[in-house]
Amino acid sequence: MRRVRAGIIGGAGYTGGEMIRLLINHPAVDISFIHSKSNAGKPVTVVHEDLAGDTELTFNDEWHSEVDVVFLCVGHGEAKKFMEEHGGSFDGVLVIDLSQDFRLGAPGWVYGLPELNREEIRSAQAVANPGCFATAIQLGLLPLAKAGLLGDVYSTGITGSTGAGQSLSTTSHFSWRANNIQAYKTLSHQHLKEIGQSLRQLQASGEPAVHFTPWRGDFTRGIFISSQLRVDRSPEEVLGLFENFYKGHPFTIVSRNPISLKQVVNTNKCLIQLEQVGSQLVVHSALDNLLKGASGQAVQNMNLLFGLDETAGLRLKANAF
Amino acid sequence: MRRVRAGIIGGAGYTGGEMIRLLINHPAVDISFIHSKSNAGKPVTVVHEDLAGDTELTFNDEWHSEVDVVFLCVGHGEAKKFMEEHGGSFDGVLVIDLSQDFRLGAPGWVYGLPELNREEIRSAQAVANPGCFATAIQLGLLPLAKAGLLGDVYSTGITGSTGAGQSLSTTSHFSWRANNIQAYKTLSHQHLKEIGQSLRQLQASGEPAVHFTPWRGDFTRGIFISSQLRVDRSPEEVLGLFENFYKGHPFTIVSRNPISLKQVVNTNKCLIQLEQVGSQLVVHSALDNLLKGASGQAVQNMNLLFGLDETAGLRLKANAF
Amino acid sequence: MRRVRAGIIGGAGYTGGEMIRLLINHPAVDISFIHSKSNAGKPVTVVHEDLAGDTELTFNDEWHSEVDVVFLCVGHGEAKKFMEEHGGSFDGVLVIDLSQDFRLGAPGWVYGLPELNREEIRSAQAVANPGCFATAIQLGLLPLAKAGLLGDVYSTGITGSTGAGQSLSTTSHFSWRANNIQAYKTLSHQHLKEIGQSLRQLQASGEPAVHFTPWRGDFTRGIFISSQLRVDRSPEEVLGLFENFYKGHPFTIVSRNPISLKQVVNTNKCLIQLEQVGSQLVVHSALDNLLKGASGQAVQNMNLLFGLDETAGLRLKANAF
Amino acid sequence: MRRVRAGIIGGAGYTGGEMIRLLINHPAVDISFIHSKSNAGKPVTVVHEDLAGDTELTFNDEWHSEVDVVFLCVGHGEAKKFMEEHGGSFDGVLVIDLSQDFRLGAPGWVYGLPELNREEIRSAQAVANPGCFATAIQLGLLPLAKAGLLGDVYSTGITGSTGAGQSLSTTSHFSWRANNIQAYKTLSHQHLKEIGQSLRQLQASGEPAVHFTPWRGDFTRGIFISSQLRVDRSPEEVLGLFENFYKGHPFTIVSRNPISLKQVVNTNKCLIQLEQVGSQLVVHSALDNLLKGASGQAVQNMNLLFGLDETAGLRLKANAF
Repeated sequence: MRRVRAGIIGGAGYTGGEMIRLLINHPAVDISFIHSKSNAGKPVTVVHEDLAGDTELTFNDEWHSEVDVVFLCVGHGEAKKFMEEHGGSFDGVLVIDLSQDFRLGAPGWVYGLPELNREEIRSAQAVANPGCFATAIQLGLLPLAKAGLLGDVYSTGITGSTGAGQSLSTTSHFSWRANNIQAYKTLSHQHLKEIGQSLRQLQASGEPAVHFTPWRGDFTRGIFISSQLRVDRSPEEVLGLFENFYKGHPFTIVSRNPISLKQVVNTNKCLIQLEQVGSQLVVHSALDNLLKGASGQAVQNMNLLFGLDETAGLRLKANAF
Repeated sequence: MRRVRAGIIGGAGYTGGEMIRLLINHPAVDISFIHSKSNAGKPVTVVHEDLAGDTELTFNDEWHSEVDVVFLCVGHGEAKKFMEEHGGSFDGVLVIDLSQDFRLGAPGWVYGLPELNREEIRSAQAVANPGCFATAIQLGLLPLAKAGLLGDVYSTGITGSTGAGQSLSTTSHFSWRANNIQAYKTLSHQHLKEIGQSLRQLQASGEPAVHFTPWRGDFTRGIFISSQLRVDRSPEEVLGLFENFYKGHPFTIVSRNPISLKQVVNTNKCLIQLEQVGSQLVVHSALDNLLKGASGQAVQNMNLLFGLDETAGLRLKANAF
Repeated sequence: MRRVRAGIIGGAGYTGGEMIRLLINHPAVDISFIHSKSNAGKPVTVVHEDLAGDTELTFNDEWHSEVDVVFLCVGHGEAKKFMEEHGGSFDGVLVIDLSQDFRLGAPGWVYGLPELNREEIRSAQAVANPGCFATAIQLGLLPLAKAGLLGDVYSTGITGSTGAGQSLSTTSHFSWRANNIQAYKTLSHQHLKEIGQSLRQLQASGEPAVHFTPWRGDFTRGIFISSQLRVDRSPEEVLGLFENFYKGHPFTIVSRNPISLKQVVNTNKCLIQLEQVGSQLVVHSALDNLLKGASGQAVQNMNLLFGLDETAGLRLKANAF
Repeated sequence: MRRVRAGIIGGAGYTGGEMIRLLINHPAVDISFIHSKSNAGKPVTVVHEDLAGDTELTFNDEWHSEVDVVFLCVGHGEAKKFMEEHGGSFDGVLVIDLSQDFRLGAPGWVYGLPELNREEIRSAQAVANPGCFATAIQLGLLPLAKAGLLGDVYSTGITGSTGAGQSLSTTSHFSWRANNIQAYKTLSHQHLKEIGQSLRQLQASGEPAVHFTPWRGDFTRGIFISSQLRVDRSPEEVLGLFENFYKGHPFTIVSRNPISLKQVVNTNKCLIQLEQVGSQLVVHSALDNLLKGASGQAVQNMNLLFGLDETAGLRLKANAF
């Protein structure tokens, strides 16, 4: 089988680095180029120091189209600009964009959540990779939306520092963030829009409304969500909805045991656990914001685009501790 | 003024240790004895190593009644047993119990949340010191209860490892807890009972119902709560309710700026912040589980019992970082 | 090529868990059985929760010899006992022992540090896998020993909590270990013996003496060592000694840039950096104590034993953050 | 007794913040002004958020001389500039400088290590407060220097992130520093000069030489040092040297038990522990870099300057956990 040639735009950031870490070990992919304006000419190991000994690749500042797929790992707004500079498409090169620029119904783009849109992704030209919080919250709610059970949902989530990217700021300073917790973007996180879009895709009637309070967490990787809602079904029925929905989806796992964040850190998995008392349901979901929440899901989407095993290059050793 | 003579029962645990740390620097108190069966005869610095150089006190296994106040810092169930072994009272010695044994309407006991029951505490014989989560959640809801505004409340909270005491367990192991998050006692935390009792004390009608998901956090000290609820008042009115309620209470501070957990670590403060979008309100509250959530509040109660300045011995230097 | 059938004795501990994580993704190995007396009958995911969705394997309490290699992941002393119960050998089954029981010149055993004994390992029947601190310190000193340059060496090292295993103890409690540092086994760490044995293997004359102070660190994975010594060679000569020594060894990398611990966490690498001022040399070395310091190196040894690519199954995605 | 009026120059940084935290609770001091050019006019609680509810003070950008003592908490180089702008002195106002600008024998300045120069400090006009690493290393070596026993000393130290100040940099980013360790300024740390100056003050003959490798640690507060050296005295004799030297010094404590970093975090103490095997001695020392290593020691020096109890305002509750 012909190997997939991949290009990475914005290879010096966190998601770009994860793309490199994943693709250099992917059994069916070769990295053709890694674009980074500010680091052009430098070895990637200068920026991503953990890759010392693993790769001789260097950053460059030229993009070329002799690739099969390109990953856009640039900032929000930058992806759209990059596309416009190239006439809106790349001459048959497939595109997977990790920014939020094309997630909300942009023509020609498929929203890249495989558990929701797997078949559409397989034949897409352009995939808008979901946000990290958006993935974690949606995977906890999609089976309920499909059953038409969603009303008001009260979600609280916590995210690692890598979710905020590598730019320096007061709240990314170690002295501030270590041992600290803080809410931010309360009830107004930008991912609520794509979440709403997906829920309405599955649940036409009623008005699913997610009220979301995100917290900054004292760790580097991972997202943990607890979503509280009222549901008029028995625990067995609810569990059945989830197990049916995720049957055949290799990375989303409905656990009957308590889950914890570190079970998924450095993997492409999303773990889900249900707890119910009477009609009050709590759905816990956990994933690694840089993998299932970003670059891992992008590779999963690439696998679907090229007809590869959905898990190729994604059977990762968990950090575990 | 005569100095207060204090005894500590259960001085080897976390809350007992904090009692010692607070009382050795309290301007109006002398520690008469520190009881610990398992450590009798040992210097307290063997158990509480940070006290090296600060105290020559030793643990003993005898209790004597030549004290003015005794703090029960033993486990849940143990406090009641200890009281029973002494005929239910200590001959005029005032009692402050940090366990949950007497919090739910036990005859002769006052629930020791100064922001709720300050006057009753001043003249009490026995004070049941509130739970840590209970304090944090209540302080975020009391002004709303007083205004009769509470219905369903969806709270998520995160606590440091010291909240679980010093016993060894899988989830207290550093290799497990570092960089981890896990929900536990979902919708069934034992503090919900005392929370409900306090809310009903202020709000007779309606049915305030707190749905609470606690998380184990990746830090040692502190609790952070976000409580979500619907409220039909403007943000200004809601803020007014809180500012009025806590006027004159020195440790509960309504902040107009974003709050974070480390602002309160190693202090006796509870910080509260309100955020509202339309009729959706989120109340954040933060405190140190070992201080305002346990031993600090116990000292605050002692100050009230003996007519001392409510903040005596509690103007603590925050850890800050 | 015939696949390697592997058995794991002591699969419920930290190193046993890492063996499973590595072998289920190894391209040339099948796990035949995972032995754990205390967990026999349970799915391995009950103990190693991060493996949820990855494996259906269960623990058992019977060992069978239809395997090609067996990994002993039991405690110090237990490996020797297990061998004795089986007559000292396993009928042609190769053995890799991760305990310290056979590291000090036990007849029939090869000390499994590939950078020192690669050819002997290829044809061994039984391999004694080195200790974690021992690996990190030796890899920082072997090129100097080979050049006969070692005298007094002053080493300080820091290790993650997983180095102490999963047993519960005061110093493994999160509330104690978080944000803490403590020295232990000062000048008397048990790994000094195997270090001395290796150094004398390369440097016959002079008396290399390693004075070692280990610290407990505030993280779960990894070892970082700084070894200080006097050396009468130029920085270029010293660098040359290291680069020559490790040429062709895929996992030990001599870096010309500053190294940090997280570059190696969740990988099988050892990074080395040299800094010299006049005749004072400092050698920094870093590795993951559970991988290059234990289970990863065991897989590396297995690869050598069976003529596989030395890096098979060990091209791991770093945790990086 | 007349209260001491204090001014703080550079009140927005880490050491300035600690000065405020200490002085607002000091029994004999009033803060007259807090100078910060960039924050003039703002409440100090905007910068030091943990002080919410504790103080109404605001920053200003004017310095006035109606104070008894001024603390210079500005950056290295800035203190000297500030002094020059004011003609080199402040008209009888005593000065305590926390930068390194006047530590190396500047005329008119006393090196402010009370354990070394207590009597000189009492009558000084200007005190150069020692560096954090410098304090920790010196307190571990001074008794040996006084006995003339020092030769080559091999020290390794680890410091919290607050030691690097609040400026943003790659190595202060949470995503980099969490769970990480890195050496920096190997063998060339700027504090080696003031250490050498103090050692030569006590040991005229021989050539004490400290070879020092500092590490960046994964915590916010604290320094832990292990210094290795050869010494030809018995453990009892060495212990005696330390106990005699520090008799009467309230903050430096020679422990006969293992010490750990958190024993001193958020206190003004320095703990010292000795371990010896044959003629190899290891001295461990630990302190809080912002307190005994900076602002706490500055208050200790102020207490000496004004004839106050040396521990006034410095009996701090340890964070302990």
